[in-house]
Amino acid sequence: MLAEFSFFENIAIFGVLGIAFLGLAYAFWLRRQILAEKPQISERGLLVWQGIKDGAEAYLNSQWQKIRLGVGLLTVLLFLSVWIVPPSQEALMEFGDKARLVVAFGRAGAFLMGATFSLLVGRLGMRMAVEGNLRVAGAAQKLDYPSALRLAYRAGTITGMLTDGLGLLGGTLIFILFRKAAPDALLGFGFGGTLLALFMRVGGGIYTKAADVGADLVGKVEKGIPEDDPRNPAVVADLVGDNVGDCAGMAADIFESYEVTIVSALILGLALWHLTGEVKWIVFPLLVRGIGVFSSILGTYFVRGEKDKQNPMGAINRGFYTSALISIFGFGAVAWGYMGEWRAFASTVLGILLAILIGRLTEYFTDYRYSPVLSIARSTKTGSATTILSGLAVGMSSTVWAIFLIAAIVGVTLLIYSGQPVAFVLYGVAMTGIGMLTLTGNNVAMDSYGPIADNAGGIGEMASFPQNAQRILAKLDAVGNTTKAITKGVAIGSAVIAAISLFGSYITDVEKVAPGVLASGIRISEPKVFVGLLIGGALPFLFSSLLINAVSRSAQTIIEEVRRQFKELKLLEGKNKPDYARPVALSTAAAQKELLSLGVIAVLSPVLVGLLLGVEGLGAFLAGVILSGQLLAVFMANGGGAWDNAKKYIEEGHLNGKGSEEHKAAVVGDTVGDPLKDTAGPALNPMIKVINLVSVIAAPVLVQTSLSLPALIFAELVLLGAVILPFWKRS
Amino acid sequence: MLAEFSFFENIAIFGVLGIAFLGLAYAFWLRRQILAEKPQISERGLLVWQGIKDGAEAYLNSQWQKIRLGVGLLTVLLFLSVWIVPPSQEALMEFGDKARLVVAFGRAGAFLMGATFSLLVGRLGMRMAVEGNLRVAGAAQKLDYPSALRLAYRAGTITGMLTDGLGLLGGTLIFILFRKAAPDALLGFGFGGTLLALFMRVGGGIYTKAADVGADLVGKVEKGIPEDDPRNPAVVADLVGDNVGDCAGMAADIFESYEVTIVSALILGLALWHLTGEVKWIVFPLLVRGIGVFSSILGTYFVRGEKDKQNPMGAINRGFYTSALISIFGFGAVAWGYMGEWRAFASTVLGILLAILIGRLTEYFTDYRYSPVLSIARSTKTGSATTILSGLAVGMSSTVWAIFLIAAIVGVTLLIYSGQPVAFVLYGVAMTGIGMLTLTGNNVAMDSYGPIADNAGGIGEMASFPQNAQRILAKLDAVGNTTKAITKGVAIGSAVIAAISLFGSYITDVEKVAPGVLASGIRISEPKVFVGLLIGGALPFLFSSLLINAVSRSAQTIIEEVRRQFKELKLLEGKNKPDYARPVALSTAAAQKELLSLGVIAVLSPVLVGLLLGVEGLGAFLAGVILSGQLLAVFMANGGGAWDNAKKYIEEGHLNGKGSEEHKAAVVGDTVGDPLKDTAGPALNPMIKVINLVSVIAAPVLVQTSLSLPALIFAELVLLGAVILPFWKRS
Repeated sequence: MLAEFSFFENIAIFGVLGIAFLGLAYAFWLRRQILAEKPQISERGLLVWQGIKDGAEAYLNSQWQKIRLGVGLLTVLLFLSVWIVPPSQEALMEFGDKARLVVAFGRAGAFLMGATFSLLVGRLGMRMAVEGNLRVAGAAQKLDYPSALRLAYRAGTITGMLTDGLGLLGGTLIFILFRKAAPDALLGFGFGGTLLALFMRVGGGIYTKAADVGADLVGKVEKGIPEDDPRNPAVVADLVGDNVGDCAGMAADIFESYEVTIVSALILGLALWHLTGEVKWIVFPLLVRGIGVFSSILGTYFVRGEKDKQNPMGAINRGFYTSALISIFGFGAVAWGYMGEWRAFASTVLGILLAILIGRLTEYFTDYRYSPVLSIARSTKTGSATTILSGLAVGMSSTVWAIFLIAAIVGVTLLIYSGQPVAFVLYGVAMTGIGMLTLTGNNVAMDSYGPIADNAGGIGEMASFPQNAQRILAKLDAVGNTTKAITKGVAIGSAVIAAISLFGSYITDVEKVAPGVLASGIRISEPKVFVGLLIGGALPFLFSSLLINAVSRSAQTIIEEVRRQFKELKLLEGKNKPDYARPVALSTAAAQKELLSLGVIAVLSPVLVGLLLGVEGLGAFLAGVILSGQLLAVFMANGGGAWDNAKKYIEEGHLNGKGSEEHKAAVVGDTVGDPLKDTAGPALNPMIKVINLVSVIAAPVLVQTSLSLPALIFAELVLLGAVILPFWKRS
Repeated sequence: MLAEFSFFENIAIFGVLGIAFLGLAYAFWLRRQILAEKPQISERGLLVWQGIKDGAEAYLNSQWQKIRLGVGLLTVLLFLSVWIVPPSQEALMEFGDKARLVVAFGRAGAFLMGATFSLLVGRLGMRMAVEGNLRVAGAAQKLDYPSALRLAYRAGTITGMLTDGLGLLGGTLIFILFRKAAPDALLGFGFGGTLLALFMRVGGGIYTKAADVGADLVGKVEKGIPEDDPRNPAVVADLVGDNVGDCAGMAADIFESYEVTIVSALILGLALWHLTGEVKWIVFPLLVRGIGVFSSILGTYFVRGEKDKQNPMGAINRGFYTSALISIFGFGAVAWGYMGEWRAFASTVLGILLAILIGRLTEYFTDYRYSPVLSIARSTKTGSATTILSGLAVGMSSTVWAIFLIAAIVGVTLLIYSGQPVAFVLYGVAMTGIGMLTLTGNNVAMDSYGPIADNAGGIGEMASFPQNAQRILAKLDAVGNTTKAITKGVAIGSAVIAAISLFGSYITDVEKVAPGVLASGIRISEPKVFVGLLIGGALPFLFSSLLINAVSRSAQTIIEEVRRQFKELKLLEGKNKPDYARPVALSTAAAQKELLSLGVIAVLSPVLVGLLLGVEGLGAFLAGVILSGQLLAVFMANGGGAWDNAKKYIEEGHLNGKGSEEHKAAVVGDTVGDPLKDTAGPALNPMIKVINLVSVIAAPVLVQTSLSLPALIFAELVLLGAVILPFWKRS
């Protein structure tokens, strides 16, 4: 029993904990169900599948080896940090003498828990996807469409429920254990999750696109063989890439958003508790999350295929709207019966609305039923240059509308809370974030469904399934592209809302550890603070450029290897079997190369900026990162999605169809868009949040540190030197 | 005699006015010299030239017809504005009863003067460039290299001196007439200049690229004939485009930067006069400008070719460094003898340093002697998709370093003025802007030289000059590409510095008209202000997307016309003469279409944002526009420049040279880069400043206006509606 809470509140909080376990149990039950299915599949299909499975495992293992030292180091650092940043007033009140030790274990333990959960979601989710592939392919081979759909969706739901369950479990557990002293541990939990998500996104993103570009450029473009042709040595690497990028990467990413929104909602809720003396501000987000998980369990359960109508999207949507309806009713009941307050409810529903609107917006800019993609398709008539140009324009205008939408939502939040202190507005924004991610279970299920259907299709093609079996798989796959696009939109939109509420936590947190330091706010009218804004805005461009280069370089390696195999093994003539393992190994190695440097930039840049420009400058730096990060992320995601679908539109027979000059131009557009939408764009979400969280965590130290003028001059000179030096080094 | 000033100061100020007239007289003298040259050229060459001349005039005339109503309307509005925003305290003190009328005429007259000067610089500069073309071609035909170089550079210098002279004349004149009441009129002067520059940049940018892409795609790619081949009907339109884009557009753009830096330096200087009681803060920027113009006259005069060494770049650089050296000594003398202060001097020299560093940075990222362009060239081996990707990465990383450089310069300024009030820091930034543009005379001369050499080469090719004459023209042309790239870098860098000091003027100005309103600064920690930042950041993306689309659409029109002519007139077989006039007319019409809508967005958006979010939110909006505008502008300019030179590198015989697969990929890169670097990127500079100036001008009204809650809700709904509506409209 928690002392400060009423009996009902205690029941509610522990009930939420129970729902978290229920979600995990549901995931476990689904897993048993999937594994119980014994797929009957040809030996050739099984061999391909084994290759995918081994490749995916190998990737995750080698990634873990690369990052474990860093994770360990950070754990120790966080443990030791209590001797620099002493426990908060609240911790001393809660734990008395033992406060220091408790907080030390809290910070380090929560970080480790966040990292582990993120890893688990990615890893288990991916494993289940791989197991699911085989069984979906098996069901299709038996021409059993309902089973194929059910298996694909349920294998995806496992990841969804892991995300829901572990995210809710971590947040609730930390809150129960640390109560008012929770913020410290919560930040550690969020940091662990986002850092791992950054690694999974960066590694997975590079892997999947290097393999994809490598397989396509040599296979489809140079040799003129179809996608997933078993003669292509990079085809297994390509399928592995779908799993490590779209499954493990996306799952870790959404888990991270899910986690960070609850972290900032709890931190801002604790500030309101402090302000108003009412505990309901922290109980509410937990209850909302609990209701969301519960309704996701119900909604996803009802997704199944009907034998007569082969309409996978209809079934998936039915599940989604069921969950949404249950949630809204649940929120209303809690608001009416417990909160006695309409504002927090309105913010939550605003979040669901935002998720739907962003979905619509993404659809408008990336679906070929609408003018943007059609304009790209038309521009293929004048070649690849105009195709690229119109895609860039579509991406740019989509990001404008997305940011206007978010600005409008914050504006509405301001109206809802007009007359209230800023702390309430920030809480409202955080609750909008919670609302947006209410149906994470469904979203992740829909998203993971994508690569499962894709891989099943690949297995079907490589194992030469009969035509009508392949047709079932193709139908499932086509829907997967739509669900993937929708989830990507929601992931990006929620990332900004989460980042804005983290930005709010930063201000709240600095105010708490050093009252008065940010009393005058973050004033970009101060030149020093403005410099922070400039530097922050540049960072997402730096990240994107590094990631695009990484994909180009890695793809280069794969291309050369595939060309070599085609030539030496005479693959086109079918003389020898290709060596699938080498492209897999090369992609794995390439994906790890950039991890550490990008991780170091994300973790160290806020600390350096904070030392140089102080906490106010660091605040502006965060704003710059959020602004240009959001603009670039949506630009790249939607531009890439639009090119992709312009190509699909032509492949369906429009504008002279496959093989025409128009199609060639569209393929160039798609190849340009791929690393933008699947590597650089998605990696910006966790990057924004790692930087935000590190800033909040480092703020207490930065407040106490102030560089002397000579040190400042030295640091400036180093900065200037770093800028100028590379330009004198001729290549 | 000005009362508040010492005898020496009076002499100095009127001396500066004298130098402005001297600059104009020098321009006039050069013009006479050029026109005195009687070119002997074949009839065919003369015909081509007449086509270029008529096309360029027609473009400017039709543009003027399109915008004159808007310019007239704004003049009347500014005149009437005194009845809404009364004259300042200073104006009442200076002019007593007549203050209202004087200020009304001041605001409207200064706006008209700014617009007229901008138009004059663009128009006369372009005319002289066209006259210069013919004579450079004539000199080359006589194999007279020294005359060809001298004529090309001197024709360019006319534009440079017009920029210098008119910019200095306007600022000084307004200052002499209005003294302490100058800010009002200065803002009008700046606004007139930037608005016209925006129109010239947008119109010229669309024109030049639509014609260029149209001519190249059909001529070079589809028909396989060389550039500037007289059988291509769009070739005259292409040459006209060089004049209206690179000459008139660039000249108006730099004139605008030149003007705006003096406007903000004078406004911030007046604030310091107010603060310290010393007039030297306003005299200094005028003196610095005067010295700069004087040294530009000397430096440009000494640029001439030597018969034995055909090294145009060496001669041009010699002129530049002569001017730089004279300037720095001059600044030092003024600082030591008059200011008795080292800080303002240091800021000015920092500006010259920044100009040189940004030049180096641009060179590093866009010259094929360095690794970025070489990496793009190498990526052509795997086709156009990888070429595009590596160009995007190069553009992105270049913008990171450019913004770091600017941040470092502001940081150094902070160190220089450490311990001083913010007003001094802002003044320092403004003086850095003044310093950067010290050598505008030389820069514009170098830049205008580019299209003159280019056009002369085109005339030579179309009139079938002998080989050795064409070789002279080719050498002059190659240098033109380098000088153009350097000036573009300086123009963009100075634009940001100018924008930052305008941002400073905004804060200073709001403080003056409504003391206390911005007393707490511009706090992005306030959600409402943060919304301003988000919306501001989106605007440059909106502009870019509209401009890229405009180029695509216009190019489409040209392509279809050129294809039609090739087919119907059997041009390839040389049966008929192409109709050069129609592509010219089509480009002219296409370039005007977007002018008004883009102008309206730039002028109205700050007013709307100000009404919605207040002056503080508008401040953050400006910061957002500056941040993402700078990031995008450099990204597009350098990405485009890098693709261009990667193509040139291959055309010089590397990587299998012209006609190879690598070359084709490089051509795609170049075609994508063209509208980025010559239309969208350059248009962002004046856009940023128009928005800034409108904000400063509108601030006094906004301070007095406050929307009621229902009006606010209504405005929010309109905003939301504007966002959502387009997405329900299926194509």
